Amino acid sequence: MPKLINTQTRIADLGKPRVVVIGGGFGGLEVAKELVGSQVQTVLFDKYNHHCFQPLLYQVATSALETSSIVFPFRKHFAKAEDFYFRLAEVNAIKADDNCIETSIGSVKYDYLVIASGAETNFYGMKDVEQYSHPMKTIIDAIKLRNIIIRNFETALLTDDKELMNSLMDFVIVGGGPTGVELAGAIAELKHYIFPKDYPELEVSQMDIHLIEATPRLLNGMSDIAGQKAYDYLTKMGVQVHLNTAVKTYDGYEVAFSNGQKLITRTLIWAAGVKGNPVAGIKAESLGRASRLKVDEFNRVLGHDNIFAVGDVALMEGGDPDFPKGHPMMAPPAMQQGELVAKNIKRMLRKEAMKPFRYKDQGSMATVGRNRAVVDLKAVKFQGFFAWFVWMFVHLMSLIGFRNKFLVLISWLWSYFSYDKSNRLIIARPKDGVQ
Amino acid sequence: MPKLINTQTRIADLGKPRVVVIGGGFGGLEVAKELVGSQVQTVLFDKYNHHCFQPLLYQVATSALETSSIVFPFRKHFAKAEDFYFRLAEVNAIKADDNCIETSIGSVKYDYLVIASGAETNFYGMKDVEQYSHPMKTIIDAIKLRNIIIRNFETALLTDDKELMNSLMDFVIVGGGPTGVELAGAIAELKHYIFPKDYPELEVSQMDIHLIEATPRLLNGMSDIAGQKAYDYLTKMGVQVHLNTAVKTYDGYEVAFSNGQKLITRTLIWAAGVKGNPVAGIKAESLGRASRLKVDEFNRVLGHDNIFAVGDVALMEGGDPDFPKGHPMMAPPAMQQGELVAKNIKRMLRKEAMKPFRYKDQGSMATVGRNRAVVDLKAVKFQGFFAWFVWMFVHLMSLIGFRNKFLVLISWLWSYFSYDKSNRLIIARPKDGVQ
Repeated sequence: MPKLINTQTRIADLGKPRVVVIGGGFGGLEVAKELVGSQVQTVLFDKYNHHCFQPLLYQVATSALETSSIVFPFRKHFAKAEDFYFRLAEVNAIKADDNCIETSIGSVKYDYLVIASGAETNFYGMKDVEQYSHPMKTIIDAIKLRNIIIRNFETALLTDDKELMNSLMDFVIVGGGPTGVELAGAIAELKHYIFPKDYPELEVSQMDIHLIEATPRLLNGMSDIAGQKAYDYLTKMGVQVHLNTAVKTYDGYEVAFSNGQKLITRTLIWAAGVKGNPVAGIKAESLGRASRLKVDEFNRVLGHDNIFAVGDVALMEGGDPDFPKGHPMMAPPAMQQGELVAKNIKRMLRKEAMKPFRYKDQGSMATVGRNRAVVDLKAVKFQGFFAWFVWMFVHLMSLIGFRNKFLVLISWLWSYFSYDKSNRLIIARPKDGVQ
Repeated sequence: MPKLINTQTRIADLGKPRVVVIGGGFGGLEVAKELVGSQVQTVLFDKYNHHCFQPLLYQVATSALETSSIVFPFRKHFAKAEDFYFRLAEVNAIKADDNCIETSIGSVKYDYLVIASGAETNFYGMKDVEQYSHPMKTIIDAIKLRNIIIRNFETALLTDDKELMNSLMDFVIVGGGPTGVELAGAIAELKHYIFPKDYPELEVSQMDIHLIEATPRLLNGMSDIAGQKAYDYLTKMGVQVHLNTAVKTYDGYEVAFSNGQKLITRTLIWAAGVKGNPVAGIKAESLGRASRLKVDEFNRVLGHDNIFAVGDVALMEGGDPDFPKGHPMMAPPAMQQGELVAKNIKRMLRKEAMKPFRYKDQGSMATVGRNRAVVDLKAVKFQGFFAWFVWMFVHLMSLIGFRNKFLVLISWLWSYFSYDKSNRLIIARPKDGVQ
């Protein structure tokens, strides 16, 4: 039998202030990047060994991009960084009184702690939806969804019963934010360009794609015109958009809505919301709505002097004059907060005053299939082909690493000219079902 | 609850002779390619939805190539093929008396059956090795091994106990054939170029790579000079090659050899042999050594008139004058047999005589890290840089699809000039351990 290892975190004491960062998403990565090379020791904990570029997960789920193009190993990113330590582990609890965190591999002391543990799927307490629907938040979620979409079609071939066939070929996506809109557009492209070639035996025209949104419009974080155009684009692509509609129950087969309507589908994709993913040990009164941690204008967690939170898990109510209810749960605020927190920690060590966080909103965007996107900038809002081009450029430039940029560019060019999505792979042991 | 589907194979009766092919590896794929467009209906069964280019699995396992570069969806390959049917299913049994196969999705009749079910890892009845070692035969094996190698190093950081640390950092590869040799070379490259950068906290020089071979030489299927050069290359790269050594027992931690020697490792990679993967229902007397199916010189399974077997699962003893003991279990004989069987079926339908199989051995090759390979051609044998270049060219050209060729070329060029292997990813849910 293998001898068990009594793991320790084994982080060397360098005699320097130690900053521990929990999570290497957009926020945590910026903290670590900004701290490396300064007078501190930086320790990054993550439960994966790679950063994941979440905005493109939907392209992995729809066979457009390969997994490795949108993830990037932390150790590669920090290969030459001095006084930097990465640890692959889950953080279980913060012992704030002891300035210490407990993890799956042991405990470690910190001088400053930055919680960048991000967000997780919010099922709003609906146990049936949590059990039967498919979330779209991690790389594993995306690979599973890709496997499921393709296996559904392989199975749809095997029955004459129209209802059963349609339960496999129809997709219901819940949530009209960027993830839901982009995913609906990408699945519509599979319907138009890929599945008729792959499944000549099936009437692919029978495939229905439903996008469900509880409010009266799509893309609530964006302008009215962006929401309207996204609606128009999706409708033109054959997506059935249901506004003012909320999910009531789902048993893995029949989904019932608040308006009494029902749909049959084996694949309910849940992109209806996220909530903070805080770490145990933070004072109860510091927990705000949607499980986010209340922070002051310096991103310090309320009630804790040397604990910061950045990104999706942080809720800055009243701190930033332009965003009195807190910031949107997106990459840009996380990155800006991460950079500022790192700089503020360095300022504190130099006995300088910290600077408050002010989110510089550079706009937002979403894409809806080939040639179509919506872009809201401060000065101008535009939609269509040029918006799609801007969307591609911005996302390409935001990817980490030249190699990933290059591979994604190649994949996009290939797909654009061939109307193909090449990664229609079920990568799973057959006996494991669709996992 | 989702309603269950009572699946049927639903393969239309076209009123044409139906050829059913079991398995889309090198052999089965050639059969299908050659049959498509002829006067028959072709039905391909595979338990995966993609062909896998097995000779490069070791590069996926060692982070050099991404999964999607070496697999190719069957439906994409046969998108424009007429009278072609693909079914994702496991074949459980052949009912030869009824000209019918039973599968996980139902049964189907055939006029001609081609068994191309390939090979699986041969543990030679050693239950402990089967339980604790890692095979290298499928894309899932390769992804798991990549996860394990990287996670081992992440875990080695977490202990001060030298023995436990070394149990994680040391690798024992069993089998001195092409897979073992190429894998040993690739892991040695990780040791030299990647891990010292990724794990500055570890003494990577303590990492040991052992290659175990039961016979007195490496690469038994190739020339003496090829075996000797592979030995020299590996030794120069720091791999400890143990010839005349066989594994006796392995408990997941300590491996004991026939010569009394012992090694400690948590990662025993088993590339020591394969055996045929036949389908139930073939007459008992037709089963030859290593679970392969005895075939005549036309690749007909003995005792069955309309059942053929090609590739690793086929054993042609005495049929091919140059290969009286059967053909090597490699891609080229499988491909040549597949093509000939398809042509012979067409000949039979035209009432022409079949042609016997004669393997045209175009040589074999193996690579041992950058710039080094061994190549045996009929006329000439060579080793070193030019051999390595030939190895790359041949493998690149053998990949299916322009896109895969292009992506692999890019990855190889990138790795060559950067000394990097970019896919050092653990793609697994953290709580699932290393799977």
